[in-house]
Amino acid sequence: MAGKVVCFGEVMLRLSAPGAEVLLQSQRLEARIGGAEANVGVSLARFGHPVRMVSFVPDNALGRAALAELRRHGLDVAGVRTAPGRLGLYFLTPAAGLRPAQVLYDRAESSFALADPDAIDWPAELEGADWLHISGVTPAVGPNAAEAALKAVRAARVKGLTVSFDGNYRKSLWDQWPTDGAAILADIVAAADLFIGDDRDVALILGHDFPQTDPMERRQAAAEAAFTGFPQLSRVASTVRTVESAERHRLAAFLADRDGHWTAAPRDVSGIVDRIGGGDAFAAGLIHGLRTDMDPQAALEFALAAAALKHSIPGDFNLVDIADVEALLAGGGDVRR
Amino acid sequence: MAGKVVCFGEVMLRLSAPGAEVLLQSQRLEARIGGAEANVGVSLARFGHPVRMVSFVPDNALGRAALAELRRHGLDVAGVRTAPGRLGLYFLTPAAGLRPAQVLYDRAESSFALADPDAIDWPAELEGADWLHISGVTPAVGPNAAEAALKAVRAARVKGLTVSFDGNYRKSLWDQWPTDGAAILADIVAAADLFIGDDRDVALILGHDFPQTDPMERRQAAAEAAFTGFPQLSRVASTVRTVESAERHRLAAFLADRDGHWTAAPRDVSGIVDRIGGGDAFAAGLIHGLRTDMDPQAALEFALAAAALKHSIPGDFNLVDIADVEALLAGGGDVRR
Amino acid sequence: MAGKVVCFGEVMLRLSAPGAEVLLQSQRLEARIGGAEANVGVSLARFGHPVRMVSFVPDNALGRAALAELRRHGLDVAGVRTAPGRLGLYFLTPAAGLRPAQVLYDRAESSFALADPDAIDWPAELEGADWLHISGVTPAVGPNAAEAALKAVRAARVKGLTVSFDGNYRKSLWDQWPTDGAAILADIVAAADLFIGDDRDVALILGHDFPQTDPMERRQAAAEAAFTGFPQLSRVASTVRTVESAERHRLAAFLADRDGHWTAAPRDVSGIVDRIGGGDAFAAGLIHGLRTDMDPQAALEFALAAAALKHSIPGDFNLVDIADVEALLAGGGDVRR
Amino acid sequence: MAGKVVCFGEVMLRLSAPGAEVLLQSQRLEARIGGAEANVGVSLARFGHPVRMVSFVPDNALGRAALAELRRHGLDVAGVRTAPGRLGLYFLTPAAGLRPAQVLYDRAESSFALADPDAIDWPAELEGADWLHISGVTPAVGPNAAEAALKAVRAARVKGLTVSFDGNYRKSLWDQWPTDGAAILADIVAAADLFIGDDRDVALILGHDFPQTDPMERRQAAAEAAFTGFPQLSRVASTVRTVESAERHRLAAFLADRDGHWTAAPRDVSGIVDRIGGGDAFAAGLIHGLRTDMDPQAALEFALAAAALKHSIPGDFNLVDIADVEALLAGGGDVRR
Amino acid sequence: MAGKVVCFGEVMLRLSAPGAEVLLQSQRLEARIGGAEANVGVSLARFGHPVRMVSFVPDNALGRAALAELRRHGLDVAGVRTAPGRLGLYFLTPAAGLRPAQVLYDRAESSFALADPDAIDWPAELEGADWLHISGVTPAVGPNAAEAALKAVRAARVKGLTVSFDGNYRKSLWDQWPTDGAAILADIVAAADLFIGDDRDVALILGHDFPQTDPMERRQAAAEAAFTGFPQLSRVASTVRTVESAERHRLAAFLADRDGHWTAAPRDVSGIVDRIGGGDAFAAGLIHGLRTDMDPQAALEFALAAAALKHSIPGDFNLVDIADVEALLAGGGDVRR
Amino acid sequence: MAGKVVCFGEVMLRLSAPGAEVLLQSQRLEARIGGAEANVGVSLARFGHPVRMVSFVPDNALGRAALAELRRHGLDVAGVRTAPGRLGLYFLTPAAGLRPAQVLYDRAESSFALADPDAIDWPAELEGADWLHISGVTPAVGPNAAEAALKAVRAARVKGLTVSFDGNYRKSLWDQWPTDGAAILADIVAAADLFIGDDRDVALILGHDFPQTDPMERRQAAAEAAFTGFPQLSRVASTVRTVESAERHRLAAFLADRDGHWTAAPRDVSGIVDRIGGGDAFAAGLIHGLRTDMDPQAALEFALAAAALKHSIPGDFNLVDIADVEALLAGGGDVRR
Repeated sequence: MAGKVVCFGEVMLRLSAPGAEVLLQSQRLEARIGGAEANVGVSLARFGHPVRMVSFVPDNALGRAALAELRRHGLDVAGVRTAPGRLGLYFLTPAAGLRPAQVLYDRAESSFALADPDAIDWPAELEGADWLHISGVTPAVGPNAAEAALKAVRAARVKGLTVSFDGNYRKSLWDQWPTDGAAILADIVAAADLFIGDDRDVALILGHDFPQTDPMERRQAAAEAAFTGFPQLSRVASTVRTVESAERHRLAAFLADRDGHWTAAPRDVSGIVDRIGGGDAFAAGLIHGLRTDMDPQAALEFALAAAALKHSIPGDFNLVDIADVEALLAGGGDVRR
Repeated sequence: MAGKVVCFGEVMLRLSAPGAEVLLQSQRLEARIGGAEANVGVSLARFGHPVRMVSFVPDNALGRAALAELRRHGLDVAGVRTAPGRLGLYFLTPAAGLRPAQVLYDRAESSFALADPDAIDWPAELEGADWLHISGVTPAVGPNAAEAALKAVRAARVKGLTVSFDGNYRKSLWDQWPTDGAAILADIVAAADLFIGDDRDVALILGHDFPQTDPMERRQAAAEAAFTGFPQLSRVASTVRTVESAERHRLAAFLADRDGHWTAAPRDVSGIVDRIGGGDAFAAGLIHGLRTDMDPQAALEFALAAAALKHSIPGDFNLVDIADVEALLAGGGDVRR
Repeated sequence: MAGKVVCFGEVMLRLSAPGAEVLLQSQRLEARIGGAEANVGVSLARFGHPVRMVSFVPDNALGRAALAELRRHGLDVAGVRTAPGRLGLYFLTPAAGLRPAQVLYDRAESSFALADPDAIDWPAELEGADWLHISGVTPAVGPNAAEAALKAVRAARVKGLTVSFDGNYRKSLWDQWPTDGAAILADIVAAADLFIGDDRDVALILGHDFPQTDPMERRQAAAEAAFTGFPQLSRVASTVRTVESAERHRLAAFLADRDGHWTAAPRDVSGIVDRIGGGDAFAAGLIHGLRTDMDPQAALEFALAAAALKHSIPGDFNLVDIADVEALLAGGGDVRR
Repeated sequence: MAGKVVCFGEVMLRLSAPGAEVLLQSQRLEARIGGAEANVGVSLARFGHPVRMVSFVPDNALGRAALAELRRHGLDVAGVRTAPGRLGLYFLTPAAGLRPAQVLYDRAESSFALADPDAIDWPAELEGADWLHISGVTPAVGPNAAEAALKAVRAARVKGLTVSFDGNYRKSLWDQWPTDGAAILADIVAAADLFIGDDRDVALILGHDFPQTDPMERRQAAAEAAFTGFPQLSRVASTVRTVESAERHRLAAFLADRDGHWTAAPRDVSGIVDRIGGGDAFAAGLIHGLRTDMDPQAALEFALAAAALKHSIPGDFNLVDIADVEALLAGGGDVRR
Repeated sequence: MAGKVVCFGEVMLRLSAPGAEVLLQSQRLEARIGGAEANVGVSLARFGHPVRMVSFVPDNALGRAALAELRRHGLDVAGVRTAPGRLGLYFLTPAAGLRPAQVLYDRAESSFALADPDAIDWPAELEGADWLHISGVTPAVGPNAAEAALKAVRAARVKGLTVSFDGNYRKSLWDQWPTDGAAILADIVAAADLFIGDDRDVALILGHDFPQTDPMERRQAAAEAAFTGFPQLSRVASTVRTVESAERHRLAAFLADRDGHWTAAPRDVSGIVDRIGGGDAFAAGLIHGLRTDMDPQAALEFALAAAALKHSIPGDFNLVDIADVEALLAGGGDVRR
Repeated sequence: MAGKVVCFGEVMLRLSAPGAEVLLQSQRLEARIGGAEANVGVSLARFGHPVRMVSFVPDNALGRAALAELRRHGLDVAGVRTAPGRLGLYFLTPAAGLRPAQVLYDRAESSFALADPDAIDWPAELEGADWLHISGVTPAVGPNAAEAALKAVRAARVKGLTVSFDGNYRKSLWDQWPTDGAAILADIVAAADLFIGDDRDVALILGHDFPQTDPMERRQAAAEAAFTGFPQLSRVASTVRTVESAERHRLAAFLADRDGHWTAAPRDVSGIVDRIGGGDAFAAGLIHGLRTDMDPQAALEFALAAAALKHSIPGDFNLVDIADVEALLAGGGDVRR
């Protein structure tokens, strides 16, 4: 891991109901910072990788607070520009009992969405980096962001960086502006080395379904289709989640390269504190494994354990260290003194 | 649902320990408003029914706060009078782990208990209404309240309203004054169309037990006995609760009319946040189903799902909408964005 | 239970992250008082036993707060002296989901650790008492405390008190100073009537392992070895804990005397609020059973139920009464009104 | 006060830092509802007037929470429509010590700003009302809102309602879109009976300054100019505020009609808790005085006392009753038991 | 101070709005323990006096919490009996800015009010004591309490204890039952050595006013009248309070014996946190001064400084030590490190 | 301000009572990070200066949290090493009303105190820097820290950096180990360009008092003596604080160089939120003024305004920007929208 990891995406203020309350049941909100790519960046920084965030925030108290929080968790924020617009928000009613979590996006007219796609000199921005990470939320934010995302991955490809792309399909975002989301996602996947997405993501991009009953088989078929459709793609990965209740999910994982595929057996993720960011934690765990030359099975197990641990942390960020993940891989346990 | 639903009962201030603390372990209390009939009213209002609350509160800051909270949740409070006395309180130590919840009533000398049973002109109060809901807590509060409850249900019957009565037997309340609680409850059931009560409630009123081992069979036998004993009664319903731990109950439901009976299969209610008000949520769900002409099975399933969701909401009130119940009936799920 | 129970050990300020946060994720900490022997004392006081705490605290606001909290829970604190040094602290990140709890001790240079082992006139201090309780944390604190612990148990033995000793092996404490911990523990066990410790504790003290696969068989073998090695020892007891997740443990218990042994079947301890102090709650429950002349099986069941209930209470102290334990033994249940 | 008061304006979610913290210093925010016209409406409702709010909110959890809060405080919300867009927000860093309060508006693209100016059938909406209140924030929100505001006051004028208009000049809002704010404000004042505004407001509208040194003289000159410029105008009023520190302001008040003018001597407003909404509290107090036929001096004193009391209440709303204002007018005092 | 101080009075749970909120503005309440005589007892215990509380509380979680809090602060609670009834409550809206504090008593049917006046064997209860303190709140609670109060002071007088009586006239309590409060108070003063009361208290008891303009002269005249009317009375004392705002009072003090009188110059009590219990803190400070043989001026200054410091402490109790009072007497100061 | 500012000193965890409570009155503590030099560094970073912190923290969760908080506020923490020992703590009871703030240090055996004075290669550490700031707390921590402080200032002097030294005399720290504090301080002043200290600091170092009555005259005399005693010293500065109550101080300031002296007139600092760090805020403001080539009077006014604003911010850090200081210098004001 000689070079830096660059993460490009929107940073948001997340406002969530405290305890198990529904939104605005009482007069308190918890305010935290999050965003798919920032979440990956924070987790990678805690795993020891140098991470540079590239984003746009408004030049006001909210934008500065977002920057401060990224710095707190060890990210290089020199690539975060101020720009006109708002800080994107999202309101979260956390899951409880049989109630699923509910996200209310409030990110219209954000600095990130409004920013000029040419505002970033990507070759300069990627200097010293060997990895670019982006997610499907970024192009979904709007036409400027979609164009910027494409410029980013293409510049990374030209410079020889490894590009990881997490599909993260958000229908409610894509529905807000008239576009062909699948085509844009396909353009990005066409520049990626690692695609984190399940069979629904691949189906959306390639335009055909995967009818297998078994979720692992569906993922395998989707990976094969992706490898066929995108000749530069070297790896496809995803989690397999079963929701039993707000407090208890089961989480397995899948990874394929052109030579084979690996699965990580389902973990019982009980006592869930905060499920948001679980997918980003998986992405960070997998990138960490690949960057530190773990073998595929080890990388996948590490990623799954990291994702499982995320569910025990309030907020979007996965505030665990390598030692925490390794302790879970070694069997977890009682009080550590 | 052309007419209004009138709910008659005491509104209380509930003071509960925060988090999983025992009462007064720390110096904070959560203050919320509740009461069996108000809980039903709030849930019905969220389901779109016009609801009028009839009650008595003191003319002080606590009484006004109770009124404000009912208004907040959409109830018409023109029928809530001020009267001498206190606002009834109850102190709650929420359940946690293997500790059951504990309720400490502090409702002696409340405005509701002291109010003149003739203070309400029931024919006028029920104008425009087609449904009256009352629970067994109301007559248990004391002789004045018992007399008022009887006047209410009889006036409703005369005016042709549907009367629903939720048994809600509270031994600690009936023990506070010398009376024959069973006889009073029987007088109310004798004026009701829908009786929400299980075999123990029926046994108390009719004076004989139901020895069947299977809870659903006991309920069925009790329903038949109730239909025999109360010729005007058209429906009997109840939940069937199994407590596995404070965090996990199983909840099924039963409904009978004179033509048949229906059961809703047990739901695994895990990750319980607040179990208080679960029965009232069931009552509201069932009344909603019946008022919107669902078939019996659908009404019962709706009521059970509503009751199950209540366990995920802090406070007495079931702050969910029809869409939330329908989402659970459709299988629940992961984060909604 | 004619006489007093004397508990000798360090009293600490425990600083824990609120909710399910990791330590210092937000700017709030919960501050509570705890310590192995104080925890036992508080539980015994709630069970109706007169309890005297013997300890050392600094003469500052923290030491006074520790004293006040012990008084609050009914302990006689005349035996707690002020002495130079700090109040021992420990920082706790509570367990959540798949994350185990983490304890960060910060007790170097505490008043308790620095206190002169001759500062206490044990024969006078034990006047009116018939029971002394101590745990293995006390001698682990440092050489002065180790010497004081030995003086205490030997003085108790001379005066004819019953001595209970809870092994509570804390490697991180013993590693902080050069000593033979096993030898010190053996010296204390040699003066004890009741030894609360599992096969690992006995193995450490006697220097040989117990290879049985079944945990109850290992405990039985260890108890026999302990009875052989320590001729004055009359009882050996321990819990048997299986960690399924932070929220769900299984807890069984074992008790042996020279005539036989008893086991309590595993309880499903779900919805865990705070696992710290669970072992101390078991010790207090067992001491209560023995002091009130329960038969061994009843005492063990009481102790296990008390320990299980502790997991539902925030903080180190087991704030339950005999009635709470008996209610659980009788099957637990739904809301108590 | 035979008829209703109608208030037309945006309802917002206010998110403020707790305690004396700066925004996002910690991870908590206080969430309250406010808005200039809603603030006036809530205060009037507490003073016993029937109040109808007319506004637009989004059909989501935030919009519903805003409605619930208005209902809680007794407003008729039948006139609040749902409409596409966001709920307007504002972030507040409360004043502390020598730090002034800071408001960060985040109300771009709100439902209120986007709403069709013809969405409201004003003659129908004003049925049963005898008073319309609006503030200068409403037209400042954008062209649609400005047009709607003009339609509202003109319809009210046609129907013979009394129209009160509080200037509330917010430069940061008017600067967000290209318009001649002064001309729009002038058009509204041209339809008003009561104009709440100081000499700066009048200067802005009429385009010439008032050079008098004494603030009361400036207000008197401005009132005379306003009466000259707007022939229908019957009253002009304003507060006179001197900021000594965040905790201590001095507040006087001025009222003029075409026959004379009145002043209320400065009050020492110390121990300020929340200064936001102080002007709205003054407006509500004055409207209350005028609607209950107080003489001008009494109405002005009532309005000033109401405004002074607002500074002691967290949130935008002035949660005091007539008795509280009268107690302050009678001299205040020590603990009321 | 060889003997114990006995305090007789009701112990209550105080429920107050947090921050500067009005009661139930949000869903949180602060729960603390208080009561005029308990407040005096806690302060005296912190000043080093052995204090025994005599009272009645219910045998429930609230009564036990009250006991625990008294123990926490060092009171001997062996004299607190459990009895049927409720724990008395009071709801407090703390003062803020120009809003005075508001107390809403909710103590009807309390264990203390209902207790049999013969339930206490006063000669036994006073064994080992040399001082009895009682306040005018105790007899105001109801006929049983009034009778008990008289028995207490008469028994104390017979045994030769010093009796201090703090008038603490609460009209809202005396109005709740038909009696001649003045006569009862006079009977108690007739058994007292130290009467803490101002000219209004004396006027009430003796039935004639003190017309002097200067408050100190009024107190002097009242003291002389009291010495004339009550031949056993040896001292009369009171504070002189001027309320400038909720945050700033001025507080002076007066003390007389049969040989002369002393005054303490007004202190500027700014930044008031909680004014409740200020009078009790004065009583405790004065009793401390007298019991430790300070000269009258020193005792009065100590009492005034103690009372002034109380205003900086949340809750009823004056949680300051002798060193804190002495530091203020020595001039206060900046940060103490 | 071409180069970096290096700050060398201990970083601590500050644990303070919430609201106006006394320490551990309730079970909550606020946890923040602070330390004299870190406070200066954070303020300078907010004013736009590149700042590098040099310190030692333990390699545990507390040390990492301290680092994260410094990063959050923009400090370069590459110079903060991990080392054996504890993180220094201090417990704070904030001032309230007439109660002064109380600091309870708990920093024995901290990583900073234990660190090898040769652990830092100062010439390397100061590379790229043009300013070193240190305070008198650093050498007071213990012999290792004192030696390290001397090495730091001497190395800075050799490299031609400007050295600022804030006396910050803490008697309670110097008393903990046997040394001649005055001599050590003198050695540091002998290497400083800017000495922030008042006449008491100079008197301590030079061993003679300054008898002038007027505080500004005393400071002038002390500055002259310092210039005489320390030939390299170019500037002496200090604040002049008068404590009226916990909520209201008056703060003036003094600056001298070898050519003259300047004073800033007293500011009324009312509504104080947190006085800790006020001196550090002054130091940072002055360093900012000097580094940006303000004239002496302007620099002093800026420093005083910055210090005054600090009193409005919870925590040690002065979280204000240049614009905030300039706004206060321009007269402050009402709500900024």
